[in-house]
Amino acid sequence: MKALITDLIEKAQKIGEVDLVLKNGEIVDVFSLETFKGDVAIHNGYIVGIGQFETGKKVIDVSNQYIVPGFIDGHIHIESTMVRPSEFSRAIIKHGITTVVTDPHEIANVSGLEGIKFMISDAKNSVVDILMKLPSSVPATKFENNGATLTSNDLRELLECDEVIGLAEVMDYPSVINMEQDMMEKIEMVKNRKLVIDGHAAGLSDDILDIYSIASIRNDHEAVNAKEALTRVRKGFNVLVREGSAAKDLLAILPAISSKNSTRFSFCTDDKHLDEMVEEGTINHAIKLAVKNGLDPLIAIQMATINNANCHEIDNKGAVAPGYIADLVIVDNLVDLSVHKVIKNGKTVYIENQQSLEQIEISKSILHSVKTPKITEKMLQIPLVEGQKANIIEILPGKLITRKRVDFVETKEGLFLSNPEKDYLKMAVCERHKSTGNVGLGIVHGLKLKSGAIASTVAHDSHNIVAAGTNDQDMILAIEELQKTQGGLVIVNAGEILARVELPIAGLMSDQPYEVTVNKLLNMHEKLKTIVDHNSHNTFMILSFLCLPVIPELKLTDKGLFDVTAFSHIDVGV
Amino acid sequence: MKALITDLIEKAQKIGEVDLVLKNGEIVDVFSLETFKGDVAIHNGYIVGIGQFETGKKVIDVSNQYIVPGFIDGHIHIESTMVRPSEFSRAIIKHGITTVVTDPHEIANVSGLEGIKFMISDAKNSVVDILMKLPSSVPATKFENNGATLTSNDLRELLECDEVIGLAEVMDYPSVINMEQDMMEKIEMVKNRKLVIDGHAAGLSDDILDIYSIASIRNDHEAVNAKEALTRVRKGFNVLVREGSAAKDLLAILPAISSKNSTRFSFCTDDKHLDEMVEEGTINHAIKLAVKNGLDPLIAIQMATINNANCHEIDNKGAVAPGYIADLVIVDNLVDLSVHKVIKNGKTVYIENQQSLEQIEISKSILHSVKTPKITEKMLQIPLVEGQKANIIEILPGKLITRKRVDFVETKEGLFLSNPEKDYLKMAVCERHKSTGNVGLGIVHGLKLKSGAIASTVAHDSHNIVAAGTNDQDMILAIEELQKTQGGLVIVNAGEILARVELPIAGLMSDQPYEVTVNKLLNMHEKLKTIVDHNSHNTFMILSFLCLPVIPELKLTDKGLFDVTAFSHIDVGV
Repeated sequence: MKALITDLIEKAQKIGEVDLVLKNGEIVDVFSLETFKGDVAIHNGYIVGIGQFETGKKVIDVSNQYIVPGFIDGHIHIESTMVRPSEFSRAIIKHGITTVVTDPHEIANVSGLEGIKFMISDAKNSVVDILMKLPSSVPATKFENNGATLTSNDLRELLECDEVIGLAEVMDYPSVINMEQDMMEKIEMVKNRKLVIDGHAAGLSDDILDIYSIASIRNDHEAVNAKEALTRVRKGFNVLVREGSAAKDLLAILPAISSKNSTRFSFCTDDKHLDEMVEEGTINHAIKLAVKNGLDPLIAIQMATINNANCHEIDNKGAVAPGYIADLVIVDNLVDLSVHKVIKNGKTVYIENQQSLEQIEISKSILHSVKTPKITEKMLQIPLVEGQKANIIEILPGKLITRKRVDFVETKEGLFLSNPEKDYLKMAVCERHKSTGNVGLGIVHGLKLKSGAIASTVAHDSHNIVAAGTNDQDMILAIEELQKTQGGLVIVNAGEILARVELPIAGLMSDQPYEVTVNKLLNMHEKLKTIVDHNSHNTFMILSFLCLPVIPELKLTDKGLFDVTAFSHIDVGV
Repeated sequence: MKALITDLIEKAQKIGEVDLVLKNGEIVDVFSLETFKGDVAIHNGYIVGIGQFETGKKVIDVSNQYIVPGFIDGHIHIESTMVRPSEFSRAIIKHGITTVVTDPHEIANVSGLEGIKFMISDAKNSVVDILMKLPSSVPATKFENNGATLTSNDLRELLECDEVIGLAEVMDYPSVINMEQDMMEKIEMVKNRKLVIDGHAAGLSDDILDIYSIASIRNDHEAVNAKEALTRVRKGFNVLVREGSAAKDLLAILPAISSKNSTRFSFCTDDKHLDEMVEEGTINHAIKLAVKNGLDPLIAIQMATINNANCHEIDNKGAVAPGYIADLVIVDNLVDLSVHKVIKNGKTVYIENQQSLEQIEISKSILHSVKTPKITEKMLQIPLVEGQKANIIEILPGKLITRKRVDFVETKEGLFLSNPEKDYLKMAVCERHKSTGNVGLGIVHGLKLKSGAIASTVAHDSHNIVAAGTNDQDMILAIEELQKTQGGLVIVNAGEILARVELPIAGLMSDQPYEVTVNKLLNMHEKLKTIVDHNSHNTFMILSFLCLPVIPELKLTDKGLFDVTAFSHIDVGV
């Protein structure tokens, strides 16, 4: 460290040649929200000077181009991209994202500590910096079965890792309100290390937000509109504006952001499909969308860079300034952000030049995580008296929250019958970690399957098998296929498997290069059109979030239908 | 800690009565730069809720009044007020200042570690929170004699104190540029503790600012105009806008501040006279001055509160928000800021109710710090050939920086002669720590003494005896008086002592209640008028800064005249 600083200070004094000079660029200043012309001198991965620099081991002319700090994603679950961290990084680097803060919450719910360690280890082969926050709520609630429980004692050893920078999305709010010992210990232990604690304050009341603030929870990415965002800012939270695949909050929050409060806002992705990510990127896409809808481009870039660094207390990142890590993006203009070059740790990284996929060994237990016994038709029966109303999970377009709808549904011989015309479909969650044979059953509205069935081992947060369909036979075939492949996504129609994406790493991620995975996903979205009567390719992500019992209003776990507002299980029949 | 949080979370849930409710106030939100109506519930020193609260052990109606976070002073040398920390706090609390960040740099230059420990110990009796930054540059340079040298090893033990929050104003910039081992170790050791390092980048070039930034120096209070301020912001520094007695930078910096960059600016005092402080306050005065000159009052309050907390990474202070420490000021309006009530740690603190001065024991060595041998007329002679030009220290009104003026001066028998009409006066710095008998001599323009002499043991940063006068006899009498009183300020005219302020604590601070000291200071300013032809009562503070060899352009130390730009001693004769 001392040798490094000595080297940098010498180079700042122009003693010896620097590694790289970016000549004559228009530099984006995220502190003052201005741009100015200048050269950037880079050495040993750091920016050592800004001004006029003539010589360097390498000089790149960037006249008529902007030099922007590398973008930071404030919160993403890499597992949701279905490729492992090193592959994920290859897909995003070309969009200018140079650092992500990730929460390995999904794999932790399947494979526990071993899963987190796999993520940390695989991230070492990443071309972007992957910083970890420790999953705070594994399991998310006690109302379902998952693959692991992580206590404060389990997490403690991970605090020693350099990559670990805090505690991730505290979502089990009853444990905070009730000051449960283990949650308090997690908060205390992270706070004592001077690391930052993130919240997950979806739909929480003002009173509970106050409690979160008292518990030193400083960030939140669950505001879904301007009012919620401003309430959080007022209470001292940093608001991470989420723009992912299923949850798109940016446009609703945008009216809240002004130059007066912009430093309290950052961007994050949370969850995004691989194909969308490959095509449009993540944080770069959020910037463009915000600018297109009227936000000052410099504020948008500030949110994507220094604000994210500040809210996570990441030193030396997020600005084009001396002493900062040379993570830089060269773009033509600040509106369409078309990326010319990405510089990471002072080195130009072209996506073509990236290493091919390293073959690393993955432990057998992570590759064999689907332990569901055979599912029979009897296990999928929902008894309902004719004329009895049912509690139905209603999907709201573009939201993770659902509504509890109460309506009459079709029955046959005292059992619920899916009705594709009314879009009332059967849904099942089959426990897959401990072979309990648990199956939770419910009715869903809004998936819009015309025929067949779909199933997935990605099912937040416990990641049991979730399936939905127009008939029980296709649902069973889909579930069986996931048992065979040890996880993934599958589409079935009339006894035939139309498409599958294999995700053998904890049933969440592919072990293949991302290009292979993205092609399988695209093929699957194509095939999905033959059984779904609308054009969204979010169907699988929506399905997976129907299992998450910490986001209102009605969800399904392997233990049954769950009313999030009441925080208890309820019956399907009213 | 755990019991406290449990208590606070319970109260946030309205389980049990809170200590205090401020009812129906207009709350200042420093995150969004807005105000809104609400109640503030306070318990155990913390804010536990904002909204509607009906009952508390005590309820104070604050209708038609504003609830503002307690003001924070980002950088002040308490010694410069000439009263000890506990007394200092009694004087500022009524102005709404509830936290100060102090650098015990002055007493450290006289009494070393013992001096710092005295400050920490006396601060425990303070009604405001006094947070310490460790003096980084004792001595400030090698070009003078002072009372102590503090290495990184000396400072290390102080990092264990809860009150210590970082490293103070790194001013010895050659030691940074040259990466001297001890300076690097100080920076490294503070950085490893995740504490913040402050700079003192007076007049430094862009290149050296870059080096400061590489060395993780994050704050600076030496910008003296808008251009310097914006340069620092661009390079990632937080700018502490200084408004003290001698250095008043606020109006010159103000044009740089806008809602786009305001979070990068804070307020500080640096050095302020006790009488001015008692009368107009410190940070409250800066807010008022900024607002009077066009700054949005909410931005000014933001700078005085949360921005200061953020730039020093002080958690839980600087905002009216749940989980924050209940340091609050109740004011009638945001323009004249007349203070109704000050709440500190949830308790209403009236200045009248303060404890009287605690008699604490002060060690003999701190009370006997003036060790100068007898000064003779011969020791004050400046040889100059008739017709030879002289290097003259020119004082610039309202600035700490001086200009090097070259001019012809009056001589008699080959010796310089003071000329009050042209305002060319003799100045002397007599070493007082080690009885070396060193006397540095120079000529000063701008003090405007008509007759007599003045002398002081407050002489930045080594705090030797500094004297200036129209004749040698009065200068010697003034110096002898300081030897008798063991430090302070003195005015002499025609062989008579007109006024004195005794400062026996390290020759810097009074051992009396602040009311006694302020009266002596007022008397001295009155008497000063009889020998000075202008109305400034900053004469002594200006004199004391003429010795500070880290602020350009020309200064005087006990080793002689010092050219700060060349960073070397020069002769008086050109």
